[in-house]
Amino acid sequence: MAKILAINAGSSTLKWKLFSVPEETVIASGMVDRLGLPDSVFTIKKADGSKYSETKDQIDAKEAAAMVLTRLKSDNIVTHLSEITGVGHRVVAGGEDFKDSVVITSQTLKKIKDLSEYAPLHNPTQAYYIEVFRDLLPKATQVAVFDTSLYADMPKVNYLYSIPYDYYEKFGARKYGAHGTSHRYVANRTAQLLGKPLDSLKLVTLHLGSGASITAFDHGKAVDTSMGFTPLAGITMSTRSGDIDASIIPFLMRHLGISDVEDFVDILNHKSGLLGISGLSPDMRDLDKTQDTRERSKLAIDIFVNRVVKYVGSYIAEMNGIDALVFTAGVGENSWMIRERVTKALGYFGVTVDDEKNHMHGKEQIISKDDEPVTVMVVPTNEELMIVRDVERLSKAE
Amino acid sequence: MAKILAINAGSSTLKWKLFSVPEETVIASGMVDRLGLPDSVFTIKKADGSKYSETKDQIDAKEAAAMVLTRLKSDNIVTHLSEITGVGHRVVAGGEDFKDSVVITSQTLKKIKDLSEYAPLHNPTQAYYIEVFRDLLPKATQVAVFDTSLYADMPKVNYLYSIPYDYYEKFGARKYGAHGTSHRYVANRTAQLLGKPLDSLKLVTLHLGSGASITAFDHGKAVDTSMGFTPLAGITMSTRSGDIDASIIPFLMRHLGISDVEDFVDILNHKSGLLGISGLSPDMRDLDKTQDTRERSKLAIDIFVNRVVKYVGSYIAEMNGIDALVFTAGVGENSWMIRERVTKALGYFGVTVDDEKNHMHGKEQIISKDDEPVTVMVVPTNEELMIVRDVERLSKAE
Repeated sequence: MAKILAINAGSSTLKWKLFSVPEETVIASGMVDRLGLPDSVFTIKKADGSKYSETKDQIDAKEAAAMVLTRLKSDNIVTHLSEITGVGHRVVAGGEDFKDSVVITSQTLKKIKDLSEYAPLHNPTQAYYIEVFRDLLPKATQVAVFDTSLYADMPKVNYLYSIPYDYYEKFGARKYGAHGTSHRYVANRTAQLLGKPLDSLKLVTLHLGSGASITAFDHGKAVDTSMGFTPLAGITMSTRSGDIDASIIPFLMRHLGISDVEDFVDILNHKSGLLGISGLSPDMRDLDKTQDTRERSKLAIDIFVNRVVKYVGSYIAEMNGIDALVFTAGVGENSWMIRERVTKALGYFGVTVDDEKNHMHGKEQIISKDDEPVTVMVVPTNEELMIVRDVERLSKAE
Repeated sequence: MAKILAINAGSSTLKWKLFSVPEETVIASGMVDRLGLPDSVFTIKKADGSKYSETKDQIDAKEAAAMVLTRLKSDNIVTHLSEITGVGHRVVAGGEDFKDSVVITSQTLKKIKDLSEYAPLHNPTQAYYIEVFRDLLPKATQVAVFDTSLYADMPKVNYLYSIPYDYYEKFGARKYGAHGTSHRYVANRTAQLLGKPLDSLKLVTLHLGSGASITAFDHGKAVDTSMGFTPLAGITMSTRSGDIDASIIPFLMRHLGISDVEDFVDILNHKSGLLGISGLSPDMRDLDKTQDTRERSKLAIDIFVNRVVKYVGSYIAEMNGIDALVFTAGVGENSWMIRERVTKALGYFGVTVDDEKNHMHGKEQIISKDDEPVTVMVVPTNEELMIVRDVERLSKAE
């Protein structure tokens, strides 16, 4: 039985899932959190639901990877590490070069490092984990799966900004998007559930998590997405501002006494969005609970819904229609309140919601009324499965 | 016969129109250009179509205003200056205080100066002209007409950015919009032409000039607009970028060796938009002429149309419908090519275009097909008339 490991590495966390293929079942998963900090936490969850965790000071990236593999063996989840035939790594920035996932070679690894400027908090770390796992599992095929590759081939009219053209040619200043692996999974799964080929459909997929993005799929091709050069742009997120007027930046920098624009962009990334508006929490659940009693909790929700509705409208205009609207990720899968508000606001386009079907959490389900022009559904995302499938596909192609 | 003067002052130009009221006919108009520069140019056009112009070095604001009045008398356009009973001044920034045009008092004049931070190139100049004309025509009622007042009362959900809420409370960081006088004129005129009260309609008005903005009118109220804290945001303009991802700013500043964010915002204001993409011209006519032979001319037009279409879609979503789509300003009134492309892209919403009716320049005319759900029309804008009407209305109320 072959096994494939999906790795999702951030600057302070290592999340992983081990799949058995071709069954595509998860046989173990886990996370190492607070990497490099006092009280790093190692957790593992097995297929039978049992969990184990330990706390240890300052686990570093290399040790974290080794701990995962050691634990897999000691718990008899794998008998020999050679059973792990492939490792798929999420990589945030793939630039314009990577239009699909790739098998790691020294050349592709170098390119991933070269793209660090486009994702300084992610690409260097993810490149490092690729090296660590290559050393620990030298016979496994290492594959990089990019957040951006879905968007590399968007129409130029959508990925270009209205700025001097040579900024694109010289520096790669364009819209790259993000969350591509999630949107790709959800779009494909939607087509499967509808029993129609993806390339016959006009879809809008709503990845509404703490990061949030909206993608338009026109006949199988991702033609537009709300995130931009980085994941800062687009709709209101937990702590990210989404779209703002650029000229508010020098104005606020003056008033706040900030001299480095990076520091201001940091505020837009970490202190804005739902948290900034509400002054309470970046978590939609906290805002939902308090929206009847706190004006600014309600305001944050109202703004979030408004931005989602406007992006959906803009993509319906761009595609000249819509067959299905799909909710995914934390908020999209679990907040019936947000789904209800978004769908009711879109009634003009034939978007409906069946309240009974909608009152649920995290289920793969159609929630629109029967026989309506637009199918509205919830499809829980599964980026790791998408990663594993890419590893399988590219391993076979080798 | 009473006369009202409409003043539109910029940093280097003074544009004016003299109306006879209540007939609302233009009896003279003119411009002083290149103020404070060598070869300043004074021009005047009379109701009979005759024109006069003279060139003189370094005309300053005070002299320009005096020249206008002197000429009006010497050409017998007015017999006594006292016939000019009112002067209406366009003022760019009205902040949150000015929700309507106002009669100038020492207090309102002070407020206009205090709002200079929101329009540093305009408000100080416009305040200065108010003082100059108050001195020259002490008996005339001076009225300020703000670009922003139409938007002062938009729903909070639309004027707030998803940034820390206290930036709004402390510094007034919000969407103020612009072009309000134009959108207001066009919306009112549209309702009149349709024979329906404005407050029964859902309109999207497209002011497409070298600056360009889109406004949504929901039952008589301007509920959203594409420009933002300043006129930089929104759709692609002649030289302005419209919306971009804020985090591209530090990235490009590094690559371009720019250390002051104001300098980069300057590029977004003056070297971007159609000019930046095309590398040829900020003028839609030049791009139209070369779109079949120059790829980047076509690209600039494609991007412009795409952004317009997306904003219209977002406003249809926001208002849950649309009764009429209205084109105005230089490009909107004169480019049938742009109108054709925008309307054809919006076919899904019931937007149509009658090619024969559309093939014209600058005429007030319905261009959609008969008996279709959305009326598409061209309404040449007339900001000066709107200004004059505000002067009349507020003079009577005094």
